[in-house]
Amino acid sequence: MNKIEVCFSPELIHLHELRGKIVVVVDIFRATSTMVAALAHGVREILPFADLEACRKMQDKGFLIGGERNGLTAPGFEMGNSPVAYLQGNYSGRKLAMTTTNGTQAIEKSRGAQEILIGSFPNLQATVTYIQKKEKDVLIHCAGWKGRFNLEDSLYAGALVKSLESTHYADEDGALAMKSLFEKEGHDLKSYLSQASHAKRLQNHGIESDIDFCLTLDLYELVVKVDGRGFLVGVK
Amino acid sequence: MNKIEVCFSPELIHLHELRGKIVVVVDIFRATSTMVAALAHGVREILPFADLEACRKMQDKGFLIGGERNGLTAPGFEMGNSPVAYLQGNYSGRKLAMTTTNGTQAIEKSRGAQEILIGSFPNLQATVTYIQKKEKDVLIHCAGWKGRFNLEDSLYAGALVKSLESTHYADEDGALAMKSLFEKEGHDLKSYLSQASHAKRLQNHGIESDIDFCLTLDLYELVVKVDGRGFLVGVK
Repeated sequence: MNKIEVCFSPELIHLHELRGKIVVVVDIFRATSTMVAALAHGVREILPFADLEACRKMQDKGFLIGGERNGLTAPGFEMGNSPVAYLQGNYSGRKLAMTTTNGTQAIEKSRGAQEILIGSFPNLQATVTYIQKKEKDVLIHCAGWKGRFNLEDSLYAGALVKSLESTHYADEDGALAMKSLFEKEGHDLKSYLSQASHAKRLQNHGIESDIDFCLTLDLYELVVKVDGRGFLVGVK
Repeated sequence: MNKIEVCFSPELIHLHELRGKIVVVVDIFRATSTMVAALAHGVREILPFADLEACRKMQDKGFLIGGERNGLTAPGFEMGNSPVAYLQGNYSGRKLAMTTTNGTQAIEKSRGAQEILIGSFPNLQATVTYIQKKEKDVLIHCAGWKGRFNLEDSLYAGALVKSLESTHYADEDGALAMKSLFEKEGHDLKSYLSQASHAKRLQNHGIESDIDFCLTLDLYELVVKVDGRGFLVGVK
């Protein structure tokens, strides 16, 4: 058996060993869900940026640019952080440069891992299958909200711990707690997460369809990983 | 209704507003349980120290000194961090200076709150009753383990959120999650927490009776608070 653990915030990631592990970065509402949607619907590759201005400059290099801060499209950006915007395949073949409040920062802070995957409910089972072929310890890195614990990333962590229980032993308090939480609340994610602070934030922005998408299980067989150049790419 | 929130680590406390709130510091295994036990059994007052050497020097001023690092009594200290050591009342009337790996650091980082309470299962209901008279927002500050989330402090947080639900609204993701976790696992704390990493650490040190004590509900009607001088004192 391999081990599995959960880090609830990029501000705590320095307390976890990354080396030799598969790190699954998750920002359910909405960065990692959007990344998976974009790549599943034809975007060729995604270059994540923690910094807004560095991301903006990629437009000159032919990239589509996606930028979000505090749940809203950053000024001057073509795309915000909505997964639904990619579902028609309108950006097929494009390269995307993307920066978000929490998710892209968490990717940056995961460097040093053996492998970095991008987690979402729409490709949960694909990610599980991929990990189970690798025989590596797993660390789930929740992006949280501005450094704080959040409910949706934590529930995804619980879902992943539960899905991997035949191969990965939850010998760590965060993983144990989130597995229990998912067992109790995972049967109706949407209803439970309607209480979550970021779901409320998004509802205020009128993006119910994004929330529906982000909580839909197993739409895609695609796994998303960070490649040697730092790009996010889809692997089938 | 007032609000209630949970901070899972002293390393995240800077993300929470302390002002105007009652902060309940909790380090179930074992610092805050030991503090409550000591005061319930006659210790006059406790001065907490984050620093080991500063604590040690209090012996010259007539204090009983308690010091723990990594679960073991610190070299040269009279007392470790065992609540059971106080149950016979052998230290009645003494002043205690105390430093522990996680708990005393969390107290120090809670400065700035309207009021700081010390939480434990043996005085949970007393703490609930006290808080409900105050009509203030509550922040539960989990000491964790070396900055990381831990199961026992989190479950106490869930128990407190649940116990306060008639007066304090869990409008925050950490509080919501821990309430759910306690609802699922709170019926048999000892069995569930036997999986927790720090319980295993303590079992290795042969202190089963400490674990039993720390998970016993409502032995005392005492509330423990930090007074204006920074001492912990019992309030009935």
